Amino acid sequence: MKQELNYTLLCDYYELTMANGYFKNGWKDKITYFDVFFRQIPDNGGFAIAAGLEQIIDYIENLAFDEDDIAFLRKKGVFDEEFLTYLRDFSFHGDIYAVREGTPIFPNEPILTVRASAPEAQFIETFILLTLNHQSLIATKANRICRAAEGRTVTEFGSRRAHGASGAILGARAACIGGCAGTACTISELLYGTPAGGTMAHSWVQMFDSELESFRAYCRTYPKNPCLLVDTYNVLKSGIPNALKVFKEFGIKECSIRIDSGDITYLTKRARKMLDDAGYPHCKIVISNALDEYIIRDLLLQGAQVDAFGVGERLITARSEPVFGCVYKLSAVEDDEGQVIPKIKVSENAGKITNPHFKKVWRIFDNATGKAQADLVTVYDETIDVDQPLTIFDPDHPWKKKTFTDFSVKELLIPIFKDGVCVLKQKPTLQEIRSYSAGQIDYLWDEMKRFEHPHLYYVDLSAKLWQIKNELIKENFGSFQQF
Amino acid sequence: MKQELNYTLLCDYYELTMANGYFKNGWKDKITYFDVFFRQIPDNGGFAIAAGLEQIIDYIENLAFDEDDIAFLRKKGVFDEEFLTYLRDFSFHGDIYAVREGTPIFPNEPILTVRASAPEAQFIETFILLTLNHQSLIATKANRICRAAEGRTVTEFGSRRAHGASGAILGARAACIGGCAGTACTISELLYGTPAGGTMAHSWVQMFDSELESFRAYCRTYPKNPCLLVDTYNVLKSGIPNALKVFKEFGIKECSIRIDSGDITYLTKRARKMLDDAGYPHCKIVISNALDEYIIRDLLLQGAQVDAFGVGERLITARSEPVFGCVYKLSAVEDDEGQVIPKIKVSENAGKITNPHFKKVWRIFDNATGKAQADLVTVYDETIDVDQPLTIFDPDHPWKKKTFTDFSVKELLIPIFKDGVCVLKQKPTLQEIRSYSAGQIDYLWDEMKRFEHPHLYYVDLSAKLWQIKNELIKENFGSFQQF
Repeated sequence: MKQELNYTLLCDYYELTMANGYFKNGWKDKITYFDVFFRQIPDNGGFAIAAGLEQIIDYIENLAFDEDDIAFLRKKGVFDEEFLTYLRDFSFHGDIYAVREGTPIFPNEPILTVRASAPEAQFIETFILLTLNHQSLIATKANRICRAAEGRTVTEFGSRRAHGASGAILGARAACIGGCAGTACTISELLYGTPAGGTMAHSWVQMFDSELESFRAYCRTYPKNPCLLVDTYNVLKSGIPNALKVFKEFGIKECSIRIDSGDITYLTKRARKMLDDAGYPHCKIVISNALDEYIIRDLLLQGAQVDAFGVGERLITARSEPVFGCVYKLSAVEDDEGQVIPKIKVSENAGKITNPHFKKVWRIFDNATGKAQADLVTVYDETIDVDQPLTIFDPDHPWKKKTFTDFSVKELLIPIFKDGVCVLKQKPTLQEIRSYSAGQIDYLWDEMKRFEHPHLYYVDLSAKLWQIKNELIKENFGSFQQF
Repeated sequence: MKQELNYTLLCDYYELTMANGYFKNGWKDKITYFDVFFRQIPDNGGFAIAAGLEQIIDYIENLAFDEDDIAFLRKKGVFDEEFLTYLRDFSFHGDIYAVREGTPIFPNEPILTVRASAPEAQFIETFILLTLNHQSLIATKANRICRAAEGRTVTEFGSRRAHGASGAILGARAACIGGCAGTACTISELLYGTPAGGTMAHSWVQMFDSELESFRAYCRTYPKNPCLLVDTYNVLKSGIPNALKVFKEFGIKECSIRIDSGDITYLTKRARKMLDDAGYPHCKIVISNALDEYIIRDLLLQGAQVDAFGVGERLITARSEPVFGCVYKLSAVEDDEGQVIPKIKVSENAGKITNPHFKKVWRIFDNATGKAQADLVTVYDETIDVDQPLTIFDPDHPWKKKTFTDFSVKELLIPIFKDGVCVLKQKPTLQEIRSYSAGQIDYLWDEMKRFEHPHLYYVDLSAKLWQIKNELIKENFGSFQQF
């Protein structure tokens, strides 16, 4: 059986020192609210895609300090037995709300909210962030690449350049959420249902005395829809002639070739003609070799004849921007009467001031077009009446307003955990997440899907939330002046 | 007990189809040689640092298809029972040679060589590559950052932005090999001995009614060498005055402050003066916030007063170049008599032509200076006589020569596995690897340690190897002309 490492201690050490501090301060049961959000879309894109929730659920459900962990912490000489005893029985008892995996997400709106005791909420920070950051990064990048491929198959090929095993395995999962049809990573199919495939490397061809012999040996073993790698010596003079010879010898009709080097536009145009002329118009052309959305777009603009792309290092590392910047910020606490007290983190950098309070996120759809028009962040106790006109405004420039009359709304944050128990009735399969994501992206305007200067989607605050935020800013900045 | 996932199926699917193909072709026991090497140093640096060998050893020793794996592969409908039976008893029986972890490495020299049966050697490709690529990338980046810090402490803080769990955990390990003093990642210390530390986040400060109260609560719990985060509200007007007040109240002498935002040069100069004036010249200043080697260099050039750096996302993702390009290429096979037959992969791109044959790598040291002068790649049966002058030449420009008279040599590739058994007498501890690496880097000229236009180290081929390579190129390119 596949057994994962116990990831309980995959936390920043300060989460333990803070948890212990809260514990010692009498705040073992003090209820806190933390939001996960990000500030910038990678590659200046028009939207990002949330991914990783399934692994967060697994983590939360398996959270447990074992005796090795306790012994290790004892040896650090920082924690006393009272706290270690508390950790021995530690598990998550709080609530988590999150957007579904595959949902298009935007800066400065909560995509996950934790309501839990201070030590519990603080402790789970790192794993939640690294999981959402990693998978959202790769899902978002994969979607860009798939958009550039304009409906052609894109397969994830990058395990060997991934940042460690989970970079490869869960990167493949996230790539499929973003639109890839499959992966080269075998274990990802076993664990997460990402279809795994692949045929041969250059070493296969080199192992034989000739390329022709290597193709024969391959088709002897795999006569069903073989894909021959034709660039070990020379694509046009050797690879394709040998491939055609062997396809004919074995009477193979369904087949493909892969080109992994050289000038792809030139080679694929010539290759297409050679294959067509030889009576193989159905032979597919697969290409690979340091591809990304920009290279794919250029290849297709130049008329490259490609049926499928294998995308490796630039997808699995999100090379153009390998950092997804979700942060985890305190947004509220509850007082002894259970009243929610909003908290804010101020900053002289206005963009870094957080949105306080326990919140809801609503996506507003125009009924006439079906398109998503804006997201509205409200306080948790607000609702939206779709039978009344709804006016929203830019929180930084409140005179910029927009009013909706014929619209519908959808709440994005759904309950995932309640009192420590996962309340998702059924976890979606990977294919369900992938389809859901494609459907949600269809609700976005095409103008948001450009690579350069996409339309910026509105994420606004309700009047009530905006007012609370501005009062808190005033309170905090007021106190600065006293020095 | 910490139990790792069984990573046997963490392979590219084509490694299975090829292994099966070799098996079906009667090459179950055919001996092959594969080299791992890379072509370009990230960030145009002067050298890279090898890391990850320990995890490769663990992987090889634990390689085993369990019944879940076999059942999964059977369901793919591609492999027959004979091959599945072979996989059920599969383990690694070959030899592996590799450079020690922490060794400075250069393009186009083997850093790991596998000698094994064709299916075995092919199968382990992905895990070896992803492990070396990931950890060498991070070790190399960490070393750049530590060089910029000029002896000041650098701590790895990036788990939350890592590409998955192993990106965080093993990234922290690699960062320590590259020179970091420790990490925020707790589980890395438990698993790999990377010292884990950390104190508080902004949420700690926000949880209290005032910053002053939060500092008091912290120092009450942790009076021993506390590090207070002073930028939640205003570093100079609030954070440092409050920190000093609390240090005095608690009679704390050993202490530090952390600044995570704002203009670091300005703030640290002012902070240093405030701390000194208040009688706290020993209070250390720790900074963090999207740092890398370039920002650290600039800060120090401008006179920033920093004792320690916490480096996060740009280290753990190697943001400036997140791809380390190790490849895995067939270099030789053995014929039925056990003779080693060199193999080459040609390409019209001269830089992509591989170095054939089973090889040794020698590092040449000048006895007068003690400095490493060049690496020489030879055929496996060559030796170097240090009592004779040694002339090396640039393989691309053979008229460029250099002769050594007073020199010594060290073989870089050492035996790791022999007939499937690990032959390392003792696996070095992380601290031993870290010290070894620092020592080996000391052998390099300072001119190689620049960030811009570093001196390029020579990696040359012996005359014998050069001749064999050129003959193979001629043979291969000769056959192209026949079309």
